[in-house]
Amino acid sequence: MTYCLALNVAEGVVMLADTRTNAGVDNISTYPKLFTWERAGDPSGVGPIGRALGVMTAGNLSVTQEILSLVEEEIASNGPNQDGGLETILSAPNMFRVATRLGELMTDVQARRGPQLAGAGVASGASMILAGQIGAAPTRMFLIYSAGNFIEAQRDTPFLQIGEFKYGKPILDRMLTQQTPMNDAVTAALLSMDATLRSNLTVGLPVDLAVLTPGALSWRRRRVEADDPTYREISNRWGEHLREGFKSTPNLPW
Amino acid sequence: MTYCLALNVAEGVVMLADTRTNAGVDNISTYPKLFTWERAGDPSGVGPIGRALGVMTAGNLSVTQEILSLVEEEIASNGPNQDGGLETILSAPNMFRVATRLGELMTDVQARRGPQLAGAGVASGASMILAGQIGAAPTRMFLIYSAGNFIEAQRDTPFLQIGEFKYGKPILDRMLTQQTPMNDAVTAALLSMDATLRSNLTVGLPVDLAVLTPGALSWRRRRVEADDPTYREISNRWGEHLREGFKSTPNLPW
Repeated sequence: MTYCLALNVAEGVVMLADTRTNAGVDNISTYPKLFTWERAGDPSGVGPIGRALGVMTAGNLSVTQEILSLVEEEIASNGPNQDGGLETILSAPNMFRVATRLGELMTDVQARRGPQLAGAGVASGASMILAGQIGAAPTRMFLIYSAGNFIEAQRDTPFLQIGEFKYGKPILDRMLTQQTPMNDAVTAALLSMDATLRSNLTVGLPVDLAVLTPGALSWRRRRVEADDPTYREISNRWGEHLREGFKSTPNLPW
Repeated sequence: MTYCLALNVAEGVVMLADTRTNAGVDNISTYPKLFTWERAGDPSGVGPIGRALGVMTAGNLSVTQEILSLVEEEIASNGPNQDGGLETILSAPNMFRVATRLGELMTDVQARRGPQLAGAGVASGASMILAGQIGAAPTRMFLIYSAGNFIEAQRDTPFLQIGEFKYGKPILDRMLTQQTPMNDAVTAALLSMDATLRSNLTVGLPVDLAVLTPGALSWRRRRVEADDPTYREISNRWGEHLREGFKSTPNLPW
């Protein structure tokens, strides 16, 4: 399984993905599930608009890898300027069109692989989170389903999750708003991941973090390993903080 | 759906169950899922040993109701002293035998109803948590599955959950040990339930609480309604406490 989450707050976008892939509990591997692209804008205004895009994947690994390979093929076949006839994620004029293209690739791969996988008793289900910014438009994020359809995260619920999402949802429901500062949003994302890592063995370290601030059109990426001292301190301090909560919480008479 | 959890700590047993039953999201009802029995011991030592037992149920409501009706039938048919030929949950000499009897009733009902339910495309799956104390033996708790098999909670993981368990698991993994005082154990159970209530609409208030202290052989029961002021204060204070955690948690550089 997998756990990926993306937050879209006023100060920017946070993407966080684990790296565990398993075919049964006896076949566990580490695969990246977070992918980013950047493209500078054409100053003359003729070519495609500048952008920073991020995609995270969950579900059948062969399906999501094939989609990502097709994305790269399209970009490569369009040449270095990505301004050929085919619209790619690096030439699409807005985030909606990027989500549409990823949804089309999902539909293609599901149509080609789905029946054979179903015949072999293997689930072909997959999902993706797309987040990023194109030009001066606001940062946006989308959740793309197996059928190629997608939803966009709105202001009221500024997060999206795929994979084993239940363990890490309460902490986001409680702590995250659109106005949460970026440092706290990164902490909330890590604590949501930490809750999932502790409760479900099929989600595993290291985790990949990507942060995008509006206007930068450039991702800050970081891999957090199991022995990362700051991550461990966040996790430990949080555990202490939770236990301290017993003191400030009233008791229900029983 | 359902969320029920039971904790077995040094100071006793906590059982907590929501009351929401739904056949689709457009057909929601309130049904109890927590049932308790008490029986005083026979001072002469000839009759059955005194006990306090609690059962919580999840899954197909017709299946779990039938099991509980059979339990009551058995008790009634054995007469007021429950010392007839048939072993019932009120005459079994220990918790293992009570779990075995409940597992047998589960197997019976599944065998009788399962095929017809499957033919109608309805899931017959169900599960139960059994907790309590018989005589002077330690408090024990068991999770009984659809196939009638069961596991017993051990010291290292002093809680059991059935139904929508994922949302409320991280807080128990973090906060609960066998040495957690009873007041804090009740709080941890309520916070685990609160996390689930906030993140999943198929779990709903009111919730039923039952607490058993070792040697009492008598449950303290309480129904917590949606407008219970102490419950609301626990939930609100906890939310504040979580948000305060941002201050004491270091930031991961990004």
